[in-house]
Amino acid sequence: MKILILHGPNLNLLGEREPGIYGNVSLDEIDRRLKSLGAQHDVVVECHQSNHEGELIDLLHAARIDTDAILFNPGGYTHTSVALRDAVTAIKIPVIEVHLSNIYGREAFRQTSLLAPVCVGSISGFGMRSYELAFSAALMLTQA
Amino acid sequence: MKILILHGPNLNLLGEREPGIYGNVSLDEIDRRLKSLGAQHDVVVECHQSNHEGELIDLLHAARIDTDAILFNPGGYTHTSVALRDAVTAIKIPVIEVHLSNIYGREAFRQTSLLAPVCVGSISGFGMRSYELAFSAALMLTQA
Amino acid sequence: MKILILHGPNLNLLGEREPGIYGNVSLDEIDRRLKSLGAQHDVVVECHQSNHEGELIDLLHAARIDTDAILFNPGGYTHTSVALRDAVTAIKIPVIEVHLSNIYGREAFRQTSLLAPVCVGSISGFGMRSYELAFSAALMLTQA
Amino acid sequence: MKILILHGPNLNLLGEREPGIYGNVSLDEIDRRLKSLGAQHDVVVECHQSNHEGELIDLLHAARIDTDAILFNPGGYTHTSVALRDAVTAIKIPVIEVHLSNIYGREAFRQTSLLAPVCVGSISGFGMRSYELAFSAALMLTQA
Amino acid sequence: MKILILHGPNLNLLGEREPGIYGNVSLDEIDRRLKSLGAQHDVVVECHQSNHEGELIDLLHAARIDTDAILFNPGGYTHTSVALRDAVTAIKIPVIEVHLSNIYGREAFRQTSLLAPVCVGSISGFGMRSYELAFSAALMLTQA
Amino acid sequence: MKILILHGPNLNLLGEREPGIYGNVSLDEIDRRLKSLGAQHDVVVECHQSNHEGELIDLLHAARIDTDAILFNPGGYTHTSVALRDAVTAIKIPVIEVHLSNIYGREAFRQTSLLAPVCVGSISGFGMRSYELAFSAALMLTQA
Amino acid sequence: MKILILHGPNLNLLGEREPGIYGNVSLDEIDRRLKSLGAQHDVVVECHQSNHEGELIDLLHAARIDTDAILFNPGGYTHTSVALRDAVTAIKIPVIEVHLSNIYGREAFRQTSLLAPVCVGSISGFGMRSYELAFSAALMLTQA
Amino acid sequence: MKILILHGPNLNLLGEREPGIYGNVSLDEIDRRLKSLGAQHDVVVECHQSNHEGELIDLLHAARIDTDAILFNPGGYTHTSVALRDAVTAIKIPVIEVHLSNIYGREAFRQTSLLAPVCVGSISGFGMRSYELAFSAALMLTQA
Amino acid sequence: MKILILHGPNLNLLGEREPGIYGNVSLDEIDRRLKSLGAQHDVVVECHQSNHEGELIDLLHAARIDTDAILFNPGGYTHTSVALRDAVTAIKIPVIEVHLSNIYGREAFRQTSLLAPVCVGSISGFGMRSYELAFSAALMLTQA
Amino acid sequence: MKILILHGPNLNLLGEREPGIYGNVSLDEIDRRLKSLGAQHDVVVECHQSNHEGELIDLLHAARIDTDAILFNPGGYTHTSVALRDAVTAIKIPVIEVHLSNIYGREAFRQTSLLAPVCVGSISGFGMRSYELAFSAALMLTQA
Amino acid sequence: MKILILHGPNLNLLGEREPGIYGNVSLDEIDRRLKSLGAQHDVVVECHQSNHEGELIDLLHAARIDTDAILFNPGGYTHTSVALRDAVTAIKIPVIEVHLSNIYGREAFRQTSLLAPVCVGSISGFGMRSYELAFSAALMLTQA
Amino acid sequence: MKILILHGPNLNLLGEREPGIYGNVSLDEIDRRLKSLGAQHDVVVECHQSNHEGELIDLLHAARIDTDAILFNPGGYTHTSVALRDAVTAIKIPVIEVHLSNIYGREAFRQTSLLAPVCVGSISGFGMRSYELAFSAALMLTQA
Repeated sequence: MKILILHGPNLNLLGEREPGIYGNVSLDEIDRRLKSLGAQHDVVVECHQSNHEGELIDLLHAARIDTDAILFNPGGYTHTSVALRDAVTAIKIPVIEVHLSNIYGREAFRQTSLLAPVCVGSISGFGMRSYELAFSAALMLTQA
Repeated sequence: MKILILHGPNLNLLGEREPGIYGNVSLDEIDRRLKSLGAQHDVVVECHQSNHEGELIDLLHAARIDTDAILFNPGGYTHTSVALRDAVTAIKIPVIEVHLSNIYGREAFRQTSLLAPVCVGSISGFGMRSYELAFSAALMLTQA
Repeated sequence: MKILILHGPNLNLLGEREPGIYGNVSLDEIDRRLKSLGAQHDVVVECHQSNHEGELIDLLHAARIDTDAILFNPGGYTHTSVALRDAVTAIKIPVIEVHLSNIYGREAFRQTSLLAPVCVGSISGFGMRSYELAFSAALMLTQA
Repeated sequence: MKILILHGPNLNLLGEREPGIYGNVSLDEIDRRLKSLGAQHDVVVECHQSNHEGELIDLLHAARIDTDAILFNPGGYTHTSVALRDAVTAIKIPVIEVHLSNIYGREAFRQTSLLAPVCVGSISGFGMRSYELAFSAALMLTQA
Repeated sequence: MKILILHGPNLNLLGEREPGIYGNVSLDEIDRRLKSLGAQHDVVVECHQSNHEGELIDLLHAARIDTDAILFNPGGYTHTSVALRDAVTAIKIPVIEVHLSNIYGREAFRQTSLLAPVCVGSISGFGMRSYELAFSAALMLTQA
Repeated sequence: MKILILHGPNLNLLGEREPGIYGNVSLDEIDRRLKSLGAQHDVVVECHQSNHEGELIDLLHAARIDTDAILFNPGGYTHTSVALRDAVTAIKIPVIEVHLSNIYGREAFRQTSLLAPVCVGSISGFGMRSYELAFSAALMLTQA
Repeated sequence: MKILILHGPNLNLLGEREPGIYGNVSLDEIDRRLKSLGAQHDVVVECHQSNHEGELIDLLHAARIDTDAILFNPGGYTHTSVALRDAVTAIKIPVIEVHLSNIYGREAFRQTSLLAPVCVGSISGFGMRSYELAFSAALMLTQA
Repeated sequence: MKILILHGPNLNLLGEREPGIYGNVSLDEIDRRLKSLGAQHDVVVECHQSNHEGELIDLLHAARIDTDAILFNPGGYTHTSVALRDAVTAIKIPVIEVHLSNIYGREAFRQTSLLAPVCVGSISGFGMRSYELAFSAALMLTQA
Repeated sequence: MKILILHGPNLNLLGEREPGIYGNVSLDEIDRRLKSLGAQHDVVVECHQSNHEGELIDLLHAARIDTDAILFNPGGYTHTSVALRDAVTAIKIPVIEVHLSNIYGREAFRQTSLLAPVCVGSISGFGMRSYELAFSAALMLTQA
Repeated sequence: MKILILHGPNLNLLGEREPGIYGNVSLDEIDRRLKSLGAQHDVVVECHQSNHEGELIDLLHAARIDTDAILFNPGGYTHTSVALRDAVTAIKIPVIEVHLSNIYGREAFRQTSLLAPVCVGSISGFGMRSYELAFSAALMLTQA
Repeated sequence: MKILILHGPNLNLLGEREPGIYGNVSLDEIDRRLKSLGAQHDVVVECHQSNHEGELIDLLHAARIDTDAILFNPGGYTHTSVALRDAVTAIKIPVIEVHLSNIYGREAFRQTSLLAPVCVGSISGFGMRSYELAFSAALMLTQA
Repeated sequence: MKILILHGPNLNLLGEREPGIYGNVSLDEIDRRLKSLGAQHDVVVECHQSNHEGELIDLLHAARIDTDAILFNPGGYTHTSVALRDAVTAIKIPVIEVHLSNIYGREAFRQTSLLAPVCVGSISGFGMRSYELAFSAALMLTQA
């Protein structure tokens, strides 16, 4: 079994960027932790970050071959990308939307998500724990 | 440690109502499962369901005394109740928003949540598993 | 056969409240008349009024057991209650929306109905006769 | 006593057009049925259908002479015609809005009615029975 | 002469809830003070708080018998309740809208009031003094 | 020189229809008066009324041959007809918009005019005098 | 008899300012012409221009004493001034709105008029002739 | 095989009306060309133009008998006619929307099409060639 | 101690202007009454009225020197003046918004207040008593 | 002569992705067919697909040198990309917008096109035939 | 050469008013500095501040005679004044919009500027340096 | 000291693209001029252009190491990119928004800027001089 972790724009700066909102754990640490969780459950965990909308689409497409679930934090593209939404719809793998912060408690333009309607579920507001909860959710979904 | 599970309007019909959207597990079953999860982690789990907005407010208020976290599925009140939002703000206990279905993938009037901005986080779309994931999230929050 | 008549908020003041808009027949009189209509057609007619949104939800739920059709005048909740809408959807009994006045000819905030889309039909503008016409419609529906 | 039945655009195709929404009774059958109802109550029933907005206005105007009530199904003009609205206001005969389907449960652009505010009442969602109920309503109104 | 003081949802937590916005005087203290003011002016002062929309409607209805004026702080229902608005319209007693904080200086969804248009006047922003000023206003109105 | 007077839907009922808003002069009287004004200024005055949008378009088109100016009261089509707007643009004759009442002081849906932007000017609010003023305006325009 | 001509902001630059839209006649010329028209009809014509909203209000107030009608070109204040609207309502003299250009054919923010609903009528799009037509309208109104 | 060409309002003025936008080919020329194209492909081509919304509905209805595809340029009715939309839905023949100009590059009110959602496809912006391309599309559709 | 009473546009016509809405007490009488109230409480009361937005800003600025509270009825500028809002923010004196009528029960454009968010509180709907209540509020505020 | 075919995001999955909407022809097949059409007409046909907005901009820019027309299916970027719109405007080559499905018959956020206003024309709804029709259109445009 | 510096409402309180947003330099100091800059470049610098919209219009008009460029900080009138916009358009001198703070990072109602579209350029967010940069810009413009 | 110049999409075509709006200076020339300005002030000036949103984010991130200020012309991404906004917020270097044209005087969709609220200031409308002024502003900011 294989789970893809996909981090969108600006998440490479995690730990350094606005720690009041996003916490001070780095992305590497999150990835390490998810991989160790994977090892415990016999799941291959692959992690990618990109600031490029097109590259995120390419990575979603590539996952069609051998991936069972995707944890996707689309960052700022959450609110503006019809193309990413189409990519999520086009592949037939369950995608779980993940956000570190509670996006619905922030600026108005962050309160609509073009991606939420095409994801199986979403988890937001628990900092790096959002990823861990989403990992559990992915296990549940693929084992149900 | 004590966690309150609060189910809003129409959730008493779970299992019977639109199983295509909400699954066919009954509310009793969910409550039983969460209580058994609580027993495993030495957490008192208290469960209430009400179709009355005012009663939900009263229950949130009452929780101030001895509750450490609340899992709240506000059902149809999610989108219209300023009074419930004020109640969540008034008590100082972390509240996690829970939804069985992905509300952002349904009718337009279900795509705004007055409660999301005042909850610490939200989990939606995983059926009865949404509650279990929220239970884990509550443990993380209170133990962090 | 059994028909439930459900009167929403403020309808208990009928006859006394704004007679220019709502006429001066009392709710008791309407109920008496519908029951006598019921007697003529061998239909049990049960009548309830409540100002409490939650109680109206409970009454709709309770009707699942033995009711064949519901005439529902949701009053001011017509325009704001997602929870009542969910309750109508959850039970599988045909519900007919009834209004004494023509709500679409009044203030802007009365011109959207959250309930209309989930009712089988609606009748409005004929004063207490709206209920009698809805009674005929219910007979037609259940006898078709 | 005389009642005018006015059918708006596309209703001539009734029975043939989208039977899932509009049923498979033809307009002729509806007219025959209403005329026979008229005969039972000593009411002259006159029926017209037109796809032309202007013709519908002309027919409404002509009714001023000798008509006691009008049942009007304005079809697609319901949502767009200020001119028909003005015509209904200009003549002083009570007009009852009739719809076969529940227009408030369909596309967004069908959920506003320019005509509803100037009609005495409206009945929708009961298929061809909407007309029969409206016929009863007209009798009540003119005999009150 | 009799004045009814009606406190809406969450006001029972006054003094404890967000003191930065609502001050730290308790509701009991406010009620005691208004009753003492009443005693000075030979006015019976009756006080109720409820978190239930339906109960507030019932209390407004009950006031029809013997009350001369109502001071009403509708809390979070200010912005969403058509049913309370209808209740205020239905009884013929002057109702004065009272708010502790200046609702127009807060979140966007608090900046419309469905109740304001049907109240005789409104007083907001003076903390517990808002009630005292409204008490004076009620005296003026009933003695004019 | 020739001036066309074009009256839109429902204006045939003038004098009879809502005299509080439209006055009690009949359309015939207005036409007679404008023709007599025409005679005084050596201008051929031709008058038409139609309730049919398509006929009004045809009449505007026909005017291309020999008409110098058009006084057009588009009635209820003012607010909804893109096709009439296109017709006014297509012919190259100056068109003056005329309204008996001050449309901007009435219902919201009457406060936008699709025709105003393509007319040379507009005159509204002076009852039947609106036509006489528009006649003067037409003379000025064609003689400038 | 006395008619007040009131020119709003920027009209003092007439003839010089954007002649493509406003023509090249100066304000003095317009005033002279209207005064000569007044002389012909035995009407005192008084003319004022001001760029100050407050001054325009003062001038409208002052007119209460001895003026029979007002021709008012409110310029840019047309679209933004509630205070001028209140002033027009406060005095009981008929006010006619005048515009040189067809404001409804220009930028979107010029397509609403706060003043139109409280004026008896409006004339726009005929350049300086708009004033002359409004003068005739004022004569008609006061002599009717 | 038979194809109906349906031209909506104002298209009879083609060649004469705003040639900058619509070109200077006449409607006759377009019809002649399409008929000659038809002859080449053994297709009966029938052409109609009408300025009347009702007549266009009648023509669409009539086509049910023997027509295989319809090329429809609804002109100004594109943006306002629910009745024409219902007519296209009611008949079961494929309809292709055709526009001479690129309607999405013009005024805001021309940028929504009520008809597009019920047509199989649309072609716009190529002047008279839009019809020829639509003719090819119709051939493809009926021969697929 | 000193309190400034600031009356905005059109209030000079009080008593004379629309008495149905504003009552028939003159502004002089209100000022006299507030001054006499001031005398009773040892408070200097200064009163100004202006129809000029700029002058109202100047008067607010001037108050910085020696004024303890301001009662401000901004009239029609309530809904449109960002500059007055900035002036209220710029001076550090508590400003109380006063309205004779209940502005929220009138036209839509009167239902937003740019000033309310920067005033300490507001009192509306009690006719000239609104000022007296605001005077009491000012005393409370400055003595708290 | 040279024509560029530019396929936007997710079109590489054609044939595999949602065949109910997009058909089951692959992109390679479409490209092969267009190249063979090119060969028949002595036109060089170059084809590119990219999921990257920036790359699509680069490809549009590069086309300035030697391309005569562009067929562009911007996929999900149609509705969100001002930058692509600017790129189309910046190069001076005619661009034809192509869509496989009728975008105006789908979700609301797909019903606005930022690109349509700057393209010469658009063709949508005919599946892979949309490209062939656009190819014909390009030939017409460059040969006119 | 001559440059006019025009400061709008409330800028006279600079240094004293909300120093967190506007800094603590006084207007006099800014004017002195701009005059000294002017002296260095042989430019006459004239400075005015007014809280009166009408006076600002007068000052803009007066500048027509002998001024080469205007630096205009319209303060709160930026967002509401069509009359000032018309004044800027009416004179033919280049006007540069200046703001001390970044208005687009503040309240929603400050995020539209009626003036920006008619100014040659705008500079905001650099405190008193915004004026100095605008001074340089004015030199560039008049010397280009 | 080091300043980064970042040019967004389509700016590589400067001089060639719509010279009426953007002038005919090339991007190379602008860069050369800014570098020479840098040399005069002992500032390292680095210049990049990219049509790729992701690349612009990468470049903003990279600047964290050694850059003191950024001049950013985000082109078409100004209005649509939440991801770029997040990138500007994430790095802690002052960013100045630069536009060649006055974006607020162009199409409606160009009149909102997602970036403006997170930049320290913005300069627009002065063609290539916008960059030079921004360079001066950057010097001021970093030397203050």
